[in-house]
Amino acid sequence: MSTELGDLAARMRAFAEARDWGQFHTPKNLAMALAGEVGELVAEFQWLRPDEDLDADARARVVAELGDVTGYLVRLADVLGVDLMAAAHAKLDQSEARYDVRTYRGSARKAPPLPPG
Amino acid sequence: MSTELGDLAARMRAFAEARDWGQFHTPKNLAMALAGEVGELVAEFQWLRPDEDLDADARARVVAELGDVTGYLVRLADVLGVDLMAAAHAKLDQSEARYDVRTYRGSARKAPPLPPG
Amino acid sequence: MSTELGDLAARMRAFAEARDWGQFHTPKNLAMALAGEVGELVAEFQWLRPDEDLDADARARVVAELGDVTGYLVRLADVLGVDLMAAAHAKLDQSEARYDVRTYRGSARKAPPLPPG
Amino acid sequence: MSTELGDLAARMRAFAEARDWGQFHTPKNLAMALAGEVGELVAEFQWLRPDEDLDADARARVVAELGDVTGYLVRLADVLGVDLMAAAHAKLDQSEARYDVRTYRGSARKAPPLPPG
Repeated sequence: MSTELGDLAARMRAFAEARDWGQFHTPKNLAMALAGEVGELVAEFQWLRPDEDLDADARARVVAELGDVTGYLVRLADVLGVDLMAAAHAKLDQSEARYDVRTYRGSARKAPPLPPG
Repeated sequence: MSTELGDLAARMRAFAEARDWGQFHTPKNLAMALAGEVGELVAEFQWLRPDEDLDADARARVVAELGDVTGYLVRLADVLGVDLMAAAHAKLDQSEARYDVRTYRGSARKAPPLPPG
Repeated sequence: MSTELGDLAARMRAFAEARDWGQFHTPKNLAMALAGEVGELVAEFQWLRPDEDLDADARARVVAELGDVTGYLVRLADVLGVDLMAAAHAKLDQSEARYDVRTYRGSARKAPPLPPG
Repeated sequence: MSTELGDLAARMRAFAEARDWGQFHTPKNLAMALAGEVGELVAEFQWLRPDEDLDADARARVVAELGDVTGYLVRLADVLGVDLMAAAHAKLDQSEARYDVRTYRGSARKAPPLPPG
């Protein structure tokens, strides 16, 4: 079955294979590449006041950096054989159990970890 | 039209709204949350030798962290109104132009930036 | 008493005050700036093989990025009133207790956390 | 001559050598460890409002994470043979040239890069 993420993963894989870059695309190296791109993304927001929006140039850079982050994330998951959507929904299942609506409404404090099992 | 990423974004949005967490989910704060999760992800790989795989416990943590990274990335893009798939494919279009197969085959060196326009 | 780190902190503070940048230099924003610089630093090493050294250009960029990281770290600690040397030595005291030489010699595995108190 | 940073670097080096951890402490791996610790640091500030301070527990965690960041930064510089103080002062020299007080007073916008040479 074709999916958005599956299509992007396949395109990233073909791009890497055509250049013989599989040797560089280890999970360790791809995690570093992801961290590098996220660092660039964070830097765009670092001096922004809470009431302030990105200007047009910064927004264009942010869109490009989000594209880079998405690409490396999808590539890393592909190399590791991880289903990102399943992983994200599983974490959200846990967060729903951990952060019950009544207790955590309007609060940014961290919940205790769930009991194992 | 329903899509994998659209469905996850909608679920994250409902989760945040039910807890009145929109006030915390500014682009700046979400970029920080993303950076925090990517930091945890990178840490799983930091001492790994190139020929070494994650053990089962580390792999389970990596899957969970990839779920967190995906969740915050999708939430950040939703708050900013950015289409992650379009952004990733646009960057890949540029990378295909920048890294021609013949010149960069087997090489990890960085290409010069594309000329503007 | 004058110290290396104290002198650098004083110079960073004077630099920020002369430009009225104290308003931007909140702990939150400085932590983001630090993360952005560390992202650039990590990116220099991302495709490096274990047996490979930085070339001269990459090394010059790494030195500059280490300078940026040091500057933001010292500025953040100054704004928070934290003594970096005391904090680093306290963590090393803990690591010496957690990682006894005999058990962890040649091993990269993580030790259990120390008991509280 | 003994210095604060030199003493910390010597203590980190002895700690690593006693455990035969030099094999893990490559520049690449130490850059990753630094990124992981900075990710934990950033996460402490992610939901903080601009008018809000860290509570006592969060502050204690931040001090510990600043200790970790300092330790890995000093260790990375030691392994690379980089003088962090010289690197930080050199970058500050450049910033003083790039951000003249009159033009950039009260402004968070980025200056153009300095001309080479």
